[in-house]
Amino acid sequence: MSQPLETMYLDDVNSALVILDQQLLPTEVKYVPLTTLEQVYHAIHTLQVRGAPAIGVSAAMGLYIHMKDYAQKNAPTSSAFMAEMERAGAYLASSRPTAVNLQWALNELTHAIEINKNRPFLDLVEILRQTAERIMADDMENNRLIGKHGAALLKPGMGILTHCNAGALATAGYGTALAPIYYADENGMDVRVYVDETRPILQGARLTAFELNAAGIDTTLICDNMAATVMAKGWVDAVFVGCDRVAANGDTANKIGTHGVAVLAKHFGIPFYVCAPFSTIDKATATGADILIEQRDPKEVTHMWYTSRVAPDGINVFNPAFDVTPAALIEAFITEKGILKPPFDTKH
Amino acid sequence: MSQPLETMYLDDVNSALVILDQQLLPTEVKYVPLTTLEQVYHAIHTLQVRGAPAIGVSAAMGLYIHMKDYAQKNAPTSSAFMAEMERAGAYLASSRPTAVNLQWALNELTHAIEINKNRPFLDLVEILRQTAERIMADDMENNRLIGKHGAALLKPGMGILTHCNAGALATAGYGTALAPIYYADENGMDVRVYVDETRPILQGARLTAFELNAAGIDTTLICDNMAATVMAKGWVDAVFVGCDRVAANGDTANKIGTHGVAVLAKHFGIPFYVCAPFSTIDKATATGADILIEQRDPKEVTHMWYTSRVAPDGINVFNPAFDVTPAALIEAFITEKGILKPPFDTKH
Repeated sequence: MSQPLETMYLDDVNSALVILDQQLLPTEVKYVPLTTLEQVYHAIHTLQVRGAPAIGVSAAMGLYIHMKDYAQKNAPTSSAFMAEMERAGAYLASSRPTAVNLQWALNELTHAIEINKNRPFLDLVEILRQTAERIMADDMENNRLIGKHGAALLKPGMGILTHCNAGALATAGYGTALAPIYYADENGMDVRVYVDETRPILQGARLTAFELNAAGIDTTLICDNMAATVMAKGWVDAVFVGCDRVAANGDTANKIGTHGVAVLAKHFGIPFYVCAPFSTIDKATATGADILIEQRDPKEVTHMWYTSRVAPDGINVFNPAFDVTPAALIEAFITEKGILKPPFDTKH
Repeated sequence: MSQPLETMYLDDVNSALVILDQQLLPTEVKYVPLTTLEQVYHAIHTLQVRGAPAIGVSAAMGLYIHMKDYAQKNAPTSSAFMAEMERAGAYLASSRPTAVNLQWALNELTHAIEINKNRPFLDLVEILRQTAERIMADDMENNRLIGKHGAALLKPGMGILTHCNAGALATAGYGTALAPIYYADENGMDVRVYVDETRPILQGARLTAFELNAAGIDTTLICDNMAATVMAKGWVDAVFVGCDRVAANGDTANKIGTHGVAVLAKHFGIPFYVCAPFSTIDKATATGADILIEQRDPKEVTHMWYTSRVAPDGINVFNPAFDVTPAALIEAFITEKGILKPPFDTKH
């Protein structure tokens, strides 16, 4: 499978996580080196890097880089090392509260250090590097498997609707929701893709349309409110979306607007699939009601990217970053472990 | 009832239809005099004046101004007068193909001239002026009655969701979908309004949020894809929208996105009302399948109002201006004649 652009990479010589600044796409392709914890926090918080898997990989790499720098400067005891890791991890975890992959990736690093805590700090830094790189490699392999499982649901000529960006740019690899599309395309199966622009941040227009177009896939951009129309016309055979967190009962938090797309798909008899690495399923969260939904700056709605204000001064704005799609509206979950249906047990 | 700003008025001394340029709102309040047929066509086509009733009034006023000028210059025979009116009317009718009020208003003028065709041209010009002014006055009275009938469906504290702008700015008077809200507010009934921003032209953000905010009504702006979330939270008790054309079976063409809102409302058990003057019901159109849907410039999605391109170069765009909501999703139609349900007979 092809990947239009690398989302991020580790420049270990310069102790930098280098990210593609997604806020500048599609007009500018610019890589930005992040060398401090604050820079990594800022990049995640301001969506320079976004997409649940990519956030997880970025946080892991960012924590590694910070701890390498900290260890070099302080030659810490193992307990001081652990304490700093806890502080830095909690700080990074607060950058985007909804994505479970962020906390999951940080937990992986913490666990790797805990079982090696009596080793010297240089070893601990090396363990962090290996763990962060393993998280990145696993993400790429998971993407490939999600693509393979999802493509098995497709037939040539099918139309697929997607919302937001759960593509290559949302991961270290080939994406989640877009992975089956890339996989189908690579195997000679032509599909058509309808891309919701995804207000307010326009990840669909700026990122999904960009990467699918670059890959030569038949792509049509629509405004979010046109999804009902393309479905009513019979142009959509399946909906594929990514997700930020799945509760144990299958309720799924994903980019704002996903819930509405799921309702429309149900109304028009179109199967609605959630594509995600298994780590996105959070068994500690019982239902969607327990998922914290981040509220973002009203200026994303009233101003962002516009040459002038498009809403009146002083207007109230409701601007949740995500919504929760009830499990009943979801046909199945496409993961690296196969196609699953909730409720999720602990045997997987 | 209050009206934040006058949408348009006739300046007969200067033979001008003066319109509030709605493309500049909410940052600039500017009135533009239109003195030629081409200027009126351009103003309707580029959405400087928009909203089905306002388009109808503008077209009537525009045709009057043109025929007055034509008559003064040519001192025409009645058959020449009729021929020029037909040509000019067909031209104006092509400016926005979906809105039935446009053709309806032009037909009213044609009919008024046909029954007086043997009178001298100065009389014909005067008949056109009176007819255009009557259309405008009727629109204002219809708005008032729609407000009264619609407000009877509301209770204090209710939340109302609306899409696009079917307010004062869409009419010569107090609006259609917003008329019940203004009426309720004037009668001391506090209501909360959720306004879909309405991509791609953002009539909700720029116009509806502007006029409701100016009137002091509790207004919250949301992106279109947040409607499912505010409904799921139980914040919405009714949906009020306007419309551009209603088929005899009740299928309703309105701003793109309306169909999706209707599906969501049905899913969440919220009544969905269409507010419109009775003239919007087009008995010559059997069903929604017979309604021509205007496709607009892709740049509205990829560029408009943004400081830079937000979608990749060469991307396909599907950009219908309207969609058709099946009658089955519509609770009732709120008109100046009362609250109606389809199919519509010819007795009204």
